[in-house]
Amino acid sequence: MDFELTEEQRLFSETARQFANEKLAPMAAQWDEKCEFPKEVLREAGELGFLSLYTPEEQGGLSLSRLDASIIFEQLSMGCTSTTAFMTIHNMVTWMVASFATDQAKSLFCPKLITGEWLGSYCLTEPNAGSDAASLSTSAKKVGDKYQLDGAKAFISGAGDSDVLVVMARTSDEGAKGVSAFVVPADADGISYGRKEPKMGWNSQPTRSVTFNNVELPLSSLLGEEGQGFEFAMKGLDGGRINIATCSIGTAQQALNQATQYMQERKQFGKSLAQFQGLQFKLADMATELVAARQLVRYAASKLDNQDPEATAYCAMAKRFATDVGFKVCDQALQLYGGYGYIKEYPLERYFRDVRVHQILEGTNEIMRLIIARRLLVEGADLV
Amino acid sequence: MDFELTEEQRLFSETARQFANEKLAPMAAQWDEKCEFPKEVLREAGELGFLSLYTPEEQGGLSLSRLDASIIFEQLSMGCTSTTAFMTIHNMVTWMVASFATDQAKSLFCPKLITGEWLGSYCLTEPNAGSDAASLSTSAKKVGDKYQLDGAKAFISGAGDSDVLVVMARTSDEGAKGVSAFVVPADADGISYGRKEPKMGWNSQPTRSVTFNNVELPLSSLLGEEGQGFEFAMKGLDGGRINIATCSIGTAQQALNQATQYMQERKQFGKSLAQFQGLQFKLADMATELVAARQLVRYAASKLDNQDPEATAYCAMAKRFATDVGFKVCDQALQLYGGYGYIKEYPLERYFRDVRVHQILEGTNEIMRLIIARRLLVEGADLV
Amino acid sequence: MDFELTEEQRLFSETARQFANEKLAPMAAQWDEKCEFPKEVLREAGELGFLSLYTPEEQGGLSLSRLDASIIFEQLSMGCTSTTAFMTIHNMVTWMVASFATDQAKSLFCPKLITGEWLGSYCLTEPNAGSDAASLSTSAKKVGDKYQLDGAKAFISGAGDSDVLVVMARTSDEGAKGVSAFVVPADADGISYGRKEPKMGWNSQPTRSVTFNNVELPLSSLLGEEGQGFEFAMKGLDGGRINIATCSIGTAQQALNQATQYMQERKQFGKSLAQFQGLQFKLADMATELVAARQLVRYAASKLDNQDPEATAYCAMAKRFATDVGFKVCDQALQLYGGYGYIKEYPLERYFRDVRVHQILEGTNEIMRLIIARRLLVEGADLV
Amino acid sequence: MDFELTEEQRLFSETARQFANEKLAPMAAQWDEKCEFPKEVLREAGELGFLSLYTPEEQGGLSLSRLDASIIFEQLSMGCTSTTAFMTIHNMVTWMVASFATDQAKSLFCPKLITGEWLGSYCLTEPNAGSDAASLSTSAKKVGDKYQLDGAKAFISGAGDSDVLVVMARTSDEGAKGVSAFVVPADADGISYGRKEPKMGWNSQPTRSVTFNNVELPLSSLLGEEGQGFEFAMKGLDGGRINIATCSIGTAQQALNQATQYMQERKQFGKSLAQFQGLQFKLADMATELVAARQLVRYAASKLDNQDPEATAYCAMAKRFATDVGFKVCDQALQLYGGYGYIKEYPLERYFRDVRVHQILEGTNEIMRLIIARRLLVEGADLV
Repeated sequence: MDFELTEEQRLFSETARQFANEKLAPMAAQWDEKCEFPKEVLREAGELGFLSLYTPEEQGGLSLSRLDASIIFEQLSMGCTSTTAFMTIHNMVTWMVASFATDQAKSLFCPKLITGEWLGSYCLTEPNAGSDAASLSTSAKKVGDKYQLDGAKAFISGAGDSDVLVVMARTSDEGAKGVSAFVVPADADGISYGRKEPKMGWNSQPTRSVTFNNVELPLSSLLGEEGQGFEFAMKGLDGGRINIATCSIGTAQQALNQATQYMQERKQFGKSLAQFQGLQFKLADMATELVAARQLVRYAASKLDNQDPEATAYCAMAKRFATDVGFKVCDQALQLYGGYGYIKEYPLERYFRDVRVHQILEGTNEIMRLIIARRLLVEGADLV
Repeated sequence: MDFELTEEQRLFSETARQFANEKLAPMAAQWDEKCEFPKEVLREAGELGFLSLYTPEEQGGLSLSRLDASIIFEQLSMGCTSTTAFMTIHNMVTWMVASFATDQAKSLFCPKLITGEWLGSYCLTEPNAGSDAASLSTSAKKVGDKYQLDGAKAFISGAGDSDVLVVMARTSDEGAKGVSAFVVPADADGISYGRKEPKMGWNSQPTRSVTFNNVELPLSSLLGEEGQGFEFAMKGLDGGRINIATCSIGTAQQALNQATQYMQERKQFGKSLAQFQGLQFKLADMATELVAARQLVRYAASKLDNQDPEATAYCAMAKRFATDVGFKVCDQALQLYGGYGYIKEYPLERYFRDVRVHQILEGTNEIMRLIIARRLLVEGADLV
Repeated sequence: MDFELTEEQRLFSETARQFANEKLAPMAAQWDEKCEFPKEVLREAGELGFLSLYTPEEQGGLSLSRLDASIIFEQLSMGCTSTTAFMTIHNMVTWMVASFATDQAKSLFCPKLITGEWLGSYCLTEPNAGSDAASLSTSAKKVGDKYQLDGAKAFISGAGDSDVLVVMARTSDEGAKGVSAFVVPADADGISYGRKEPKMGWNSQPTRSVTFNNVELPLSSLLGEEGQGFEFAMKGLDGGRINIATCSIGTAQQALNQATQYMQERKQFGKSLAQFQGLQFKLADMATELVAARQLVRYAASKLDNQDPEATAYCAMAKRFATDVGFKVCDQALQLYGGYGYIKEYPLERYFRDVRVHQILEGTNEIMRLIIARRLLVEGADLV
Repeated sequence: MDFELTEEQRLFSETARQFANEKLAPMAAQWDEKCEFPKEVLREAGELGFLSLYTPEEQGGLSLSRLDASIIFEQLSMGCTSTTAFMTIHNMVTWMVASFATDQAKSLFCPKLITGEWLGSYCLTEPNAGSDAASLSTSAKKVGDKYQLDGAKAFISGAGDSDVLVVMARTSDEGAKGVSAFVVPADADGISYGRKEPKMGWNSQPTRSVTFNNVELPLSSLLGEEGQGFEFAMKGLDGGRINIATCSIGTAQQALNQATQYMQERKQFGKSLAQFQGLQFKLADMATELVAARQLVRYAASKLDNQDPEATAYCAMAKRFATDVGFKVCDQALQLYGGYGYIKEYPLERYFRDVRVHQILEGTNEIMRLIIARRLLVEGADLV
C-alpha cells in the first residue's frame, strides 16, 4: 500500500494548480456573475491535455488513469468549480468517442475535441427520466442507411454552445438493452436548443434542453454496437461520479484554506477567530472529513482503474460521501466568514452554490444509496 | 397550557396568508432576480398593520405580542422570505422609535413609519464588529445643542433606499454603557451610502454600508437617555431573533409543502416519489423538526412577552435551532426536486439562498451558543 | 396560547420530583446492577396516584390529562428511567382496564392496579411481529362460555413478576379487525414465562416471553367488544409514545444537569471544563434540543388530549424526536464526563443504556417516520 | 498509489481472522458477562506474534509497520473488541520496552512480554489529568542508586492482573520535559491496586487504579533518558490512536455484516427488512462511512510509518473520525435489530457498549479536534 503521489502525479498536479491559479481563479467570479462560458480558456486547458486526460494515447489523449485524472481535476476545481466540472464532462465525451466510435467518427471528432477547438456535450438525461436512465424515450430509428433521431434531452451542460453531442437514444424497446449511443454534430439539421436555463450556480457553463426533430445521422455515428449505449453510459457514470466528487473535494479544500486564513485575520471581541475553541472544533471537523473524503475518492478511482468488480459501488460511495462532505465544508466555511460569506465580494457563497448541485448530478445521492445497498443486500458484496 | 391559536390569532394569520399569496408570492422571484425593493407592496403591508405589529397603540401600532407577531410573520414569509425579513427590521425600527424616542421625534417619525410611507433601517453592525456589538466605534459627540455623528456601519438592510435610520453610536468610552441610540433622517447632510452589495440572497432588500461624516443631529434625536443604546439594542435583538427564526420557519414550511406535492406528482422508475420509503423517511424528519422548531420559537416568544428573566436565552435557542432546521428543510426540499431544485424556474433554490443568511444575522448561531452556555454555566440558569 | 405550568401542574410536578429524589434516585444504580424489580417502591408510587394518573376518577384514578401525566413522568424519570418507564406501562394497563373492561373485571382488577398491590403487564408484541402489530397470531377462540387463549408474546415488561396481563389476541382472521383485548390474571392455568431476558438496560423491570397454552378465560375478560383490540392498542400506543418520549426527556435533563455541574467542577489544563468554548457549544446544543423536544412532547400530548384528528402523527413526531434527542444528550453528557462517564461509579452510563431502548420501543423510530410520512403524503394532512 | 493489501498483509489478515473466529468470537459474550480476563487466549495470541507486531525483530518482535498492525488488529477486533484493545495496549508496552529500555531491562522483560507469559499495563493517566498528560504528578525521585516512585494512576487497563507496568512519572518540575518513563514489575513492593472498576463495557480487561508508595526502582528501569517520557508517551499515543481507531473499524464491520444478514432474514409486514428502502439507505450510509473511516486510518498509519511531520495530526483525524463512525455504525446496527439489538442474546449491544469508550480513550475526541486545529491554525500545516 502506498498513499503518496508519484513524482509524475505531483508534476501534473503542480501544472494543474498553476493553471487554476492563473487562468481560472481570477475569472471565476466574473464567469459566474455574467454567466460566461469561457471557451478560450477551455482551449488553453486543451493545450495542456486537460481535455483528454484519460483518452487513449492512440487517439491523441494522455491515457492517464482515473486516479491521475482525479488528482488533476482536484487542483483545477480549486480555481473554478463550474468550469472544471464542464471539463470533466468534456473529458467523458472525448473518452467515449475515442474509445467506442467508428474510425471515421474518431478521426472526424477526436482531434478537435482533444484540443478543445470543439467542445462536447453529453446528452443522457430526459425531462421525465432524471435518475431513471433506462427509461429514456429519445429514439433513433434506422431508416435506410441513416438513423433518424427524435426526442428531447434536458439539463444538458454546454448545449447550445458546444460543437459535439454524445446522445443516448433508443434503438429498440428492450429497456436498458435497447439504448444506443451516437456522436452527433451539434449543428445538425433538426437540432434545436431551449433557452439558457437560469441556475443557482454552475454558471460558467450554459445548460439547455435539446430537441431532436428528424435529425438524420450516418450509420457511422453509432458508438460500439446497437444496444451498448446503456453499458457505455454506466461506464461513463462511474468515472463521472469520481469526477464530480473530485470537484467537490477541490472546492471544499479551497474553502477550507480560505476559512483557515480568515480565522487568523478576523478579530472579534479582541481576539482572532482562530483563538475561539468552538470555531477550532468546527475547522478540525471540516479538515478531517475532507481528508477522509479525498481518500475515499482516490480509493474508488483506483478500484475503477483496477476494474474491480465492485467499482460501481465504490464510485457510488465516493460520490455520495465526497459531495456531501464537500457541501458541508463549503457551508461551514461560509458560516465562519459570517456576513462576509454571504456577499459576492468573497468567493465563499459561490463555492456554496456551485458544489450544491454535485449532490444531485450524475445520479442523486439517494440513487447512490440504492446502488450501494443493492450490492450489499442483493449481491452480497463484501465492500471494505 | 394551551398550544392552539386564539380566534384573533387565527384571523390575523389568515389575513397575512392571503397577503402573502396575493402580493408577495407572485412577485418574489422577480424581486430576487432583479434585486427590486418593493416599496409599494411594503406600503400595502403598512395599511394592514404589518409594519407596526408590536408598536404601542398610543403611537398608532397594533400593540400585539411578540408571539402574535411571530404567527403573522410566519405566514408572510411563506410568500417572500426576504421582503418579510425586511418588514421585521422595519417593525423593530418603528417599535424602537415609538417606545423610546422624544415626543417630538415620535410625532415626526411614527405616523409615516407605521404606514410605510417612510421605511426604516437599523444601523448597529460595523465592519469590524460583527457579533461584538459592544465594541462599536461610530461616535456621537455632543457639541453645543447638537450631536455630531461620525463613523461607518456595514450590512445595513434598506440603506440607501430607506427614509429613517436608527443608529447606535458611542457617546462615551465606557464600553457597552457608552452606546446611545438615535433616530436620524436618512437624507441628513453628511450621510453617504456605499454601493448596493451583491448578495447570494435577500435580494428584495438592498444592503449598503452607511458613512456618517459630521452629521449634525438635534438633541431630540436621542432615544431614551445617553448610554441606553446597548440596552435597547439587546432588547431589539431578542425580538429580532424571534423574527428571523420565524422567517426560517415560514419559508421552510413553504418548501416542505411544495416538496410534499412534488413527491406526489413526480414519477421515477414507474412510481411517484411519494412511494419511495427512503424519501418518505426524509420528509418525515423534515416535518418533525419543523414542528419542533415552530413550537420552540413560540415558546421563546411567549417568554419574551412574559418578561421571563431567561427570555434572552430562550430567544437564542429559538434562533439557533429554527434557523438551522429551516435551512436544513429547504436544503432537503431542494434535493427532493433533483435538478429542478437547482434551476430558477422553481422557487426552491431561492428559499435555500434566502434562509441561509438567517444562520448568520442577528448574532451568528455560534454567538447564540455562547449566550446559552453562559446562562447555563455562569448564571446557573434552569432552562427547561 | 400559554406555555407555562398551571399551579396544579406545578404541585404535581413538585411531588413527583420529591418522590424521584427520595425513593428512586438513591436506589436506581442498585436496581440496575442487581436487576431488582422494586415492587415496594412501585406500591408507594401507587399511594401517591402515580399508577393511575389518567385512569378515570370513577374507577379510582386521578383523571389527569396526558399532558399532566407527561409533566409528572418527566420528573419521575429523572430519578429512575427504567422504573418510571414501567410505571407508564402499568398506567396504560390500568387505564385500559378501567376504560374498556366489563364491570365485573373493573371491580376485580382496578382497585388493586391503582394501588400497585397488583402490577400490570401489556402483552402486544410477538416474536415475529415487532412493529407489525396487525399481524399478530396469538389466538383467543370462543369455546362455549370461555375464550381459549393460545400463542406467545415476546419482550413483555414485568412478565413473570406482575399480576395482571392485558393481552391482544386474534378472535378472527380479519387482520387488524380480528384482534381483541383481554384482561387476564398472570397466574392463570396454562400461562408460562420464559427466562428473565438479560438486557443492556431497563434492568429494574424484568422482561420475559409469555406463552399461552389452552388458557381459559371467562367471557368477562374481554375488553370492549370483539375486534376492538387493535383500536385499543393504537390508542394505547399514542399515549405510550408520549410516555416513552417523556422518559427520555427527564433522563436527558438529569444527564444535562449533572454534566453542567461536572463542567464547573472538573479541571483540565488549569481551567474548569466550563471555560472551554468547544464544550460550551456542545452544552448549548444539548440544552436547546432538549427544550425543543420537551415542547414537542407537550404539544403532542395536548393534541392527544384535544382528540385532534392528527394526534397520532404528532405523537409519532414527539416519540421520534424526543427519544433521539434524549439519547444524544445522554451520549454527549457521558462524553463530557470522559472516562468517568464510562464507569458505573457515575450514573451517566446507566442513563445512556436506559434511554437507548426508547428509540426502539412502542414502534421503532423508523415506524414513526412511516406514520408521519403517510399522514403527509397519503392523507394530505397539514401538520404544523 | 496502491490501496490494495500485499500478499503478506493478506496472509496476516487471514491468520488474524481465523484466530478471531475460533478463539475470540465464541468467548466474547462470556468474558463480557463475567468480566473475565482471558490470559490463556492472550498467550495463544502471543504465540502467533499478535503481542509484538511492531516490536523490533532484534528483540523478538515481528517488526511490522503500523499499517500492517492495523490490518491485523482490525481482524482481531471483529472477534472481541475489548480483548483486542487490550492486545494493542500490550503491544504498545512491549514496543516501548523493546525500543527504549536499557539492555538489562530489555532482556528481562521482552521475551516474556512477547510470548504473553507476562502481560503489560500502560500507566499514564492520573485521576486529575485525564487529557492533560503533561500535568501529571506521580513522581520518581532519584535517591542514591534508586528511583523512588510515588503517586497514583487511574483507569489502568489490565492493572492488578498484569505483570509489567510502563509508568510515566515526573523526575523534575519542568512540565512535559520533566516526565520520564519507567518499566516496573507489577508486584514491586509499594504498589497497590484499587478495586476492579465496574464499567459499561471493555469487560474482558480489568481496569484499576494503581498507587505507588515508596516504590524503589533500579536505575536500569528508566526508559531512554530522564525527561524523554512525554516524548515516548506522545509517540505511543500516535500509534495508540491508530490502534483504537482500528478496533472501532473492526467492530463496526462485524456489526454491519451481521445487520446486513439480519435484514435479509428478518421479516416484517410480509417483507424482509432488506426490501425496505428506508433501511437500505441507512445501511448504505453505514457502509460508506465505514469504508471512508478505514481508508483514513490506513492513511494515517502510513503517515506514521513514513515519519511524516504531520503524522500526529493525521492520527488524531483517524482516531476522531473512525471512533465516531464506528460507534454510529454499531448504534445503527443495533437499531436495525430492533428489540433483539437490546438484549444480550445478540452481540449488538456488546459492540455498542465496547466501542463507546474509544471516543474517550487515548485522548478524547475533543482533544483530537484541538490537536488538528492547532496544526492548521498555529502551525499552518497543509493537511490533505
